[in-house]
Amino acid sequence: MTKPSARAAGPSLRAVPEGDDRERLICPDCGFIHYDNPKIVVGSVALWQDRILLCRRAINPRVGFWTLPAGYMELNETTIDGAKREAWEEARARIEIDALLAVYNIPRLSQVQIFYRARLLSDAISAGPESREVGLFAWEDIPWDDLAFPSVRWALRHHREVGAAREFAPRANPPGDDGSRL
Amino acid sequence: MTKPSARAAGPSLRAVPEGDDRERLICPDCGFIHYDNPKIVVGSVALWQDRILLCRRAINPRVGFWTLPAGYMELNETTIDGAKREAWEEARARIEIDALLAVYNIPRLSQVQIFYRARLLSDAISAGPESREVGLFAWEDIPWDDLAFPSVRWALRHHREVGAAREFAPRANPPGDDGSRL
Repeated sequence: MTKPSARAAGPSLRAVPEGDDRERLICPDCGFIHYDNPKIVVGSVALWQDRILLCRRAINPRVGFWTLPAGYMELNETTIDGAKREAWEEARARIEIDALLAVYNIPRLSQVQIFYRARLLSDAISAGPESREVGLFAWEDIPWDDLAFPSVRWALRHHREVGAAREFAPRANPPGDDGSRL
Repeated sequence: MTKPSARAAGPSLRAVPEGDDRERLICPDCGFIHYDNPKIVVGSVALWQDRILLCRRAINPRVGFWTLPAGYMELNETTIDGAKREAWEEARARIEIDALLAVYNIPRLSQVQIFYRARLLSDAISAGPESREVGLFAWEDIPWDDLAFPSVRWALRHHREVGAAREFAPRANPPGDDGSRL
């Protein structure tokens, strides 16, 4: 293995590869073309009886704020398996997926966020490495002013809105809101 | 710019980066960590009156077979904008998105495929650079034996199944089918 040189920056040169129609980042050292793509975030609104699982973030961005269990999907998993994995990693929670709740777009961040309606299989939860604490919140106790991201607020409201409906169209971003503002 | 050396292979070394919990591909030349993620395919089942837009592929994989207008989502676009762009690129078709039809998972390929129900704004269509020909097909004329991918078949059947319903749960993979078989 060649030791990376001090000035090596990885893919950092903008150019249009042959046969392509837009600029990609190319590494000036090794020639690797970095086809960067939008990323998928998978998560859940998971209930134990009437209470919703929230996690207080132990990491940036938005450390100290409350979020739904959600995170980047990994290779070779499904969206449902990803949502279950995130509930486990962030809150040591075992969940059962019930329905597709929402598909949100955050184009500024090149993110697609997929949220499921889910049930906790038990109320045995505890903070995983990325959470400072976890809790089960009744609707009236949700810390609205301390939520980490706009899509957390959207998903909570949309979950309330669909209620127990079995057939419903998954929600998308609120009209005109691209998720850029907190 | 340093000329890429003949042996440079880009990120090709498997190792767990510091603070991470799984192997990533790292470039032995420049040290770049390639965080590879699942990719999002966006597409549509787009109708003109009762006929469905299909495109015959001019490129691999599955050159010569018929597909729905669909492709990889690009950075900084939304899933809906991506589906519209693909209809334009592959069939010079202008479409209007109507409803979220399906979210399919192909974990072997680390793909999430998002299909919308859509309407063509006119029947002026023509083959884009990635299509050999394009056509509008009545249900009974769909070339079932010459479809490019399993998810094309799924989306066509699911489109038929939901009909004109306004509120419906988007479809997922047929039970037990991970999309690995053609």
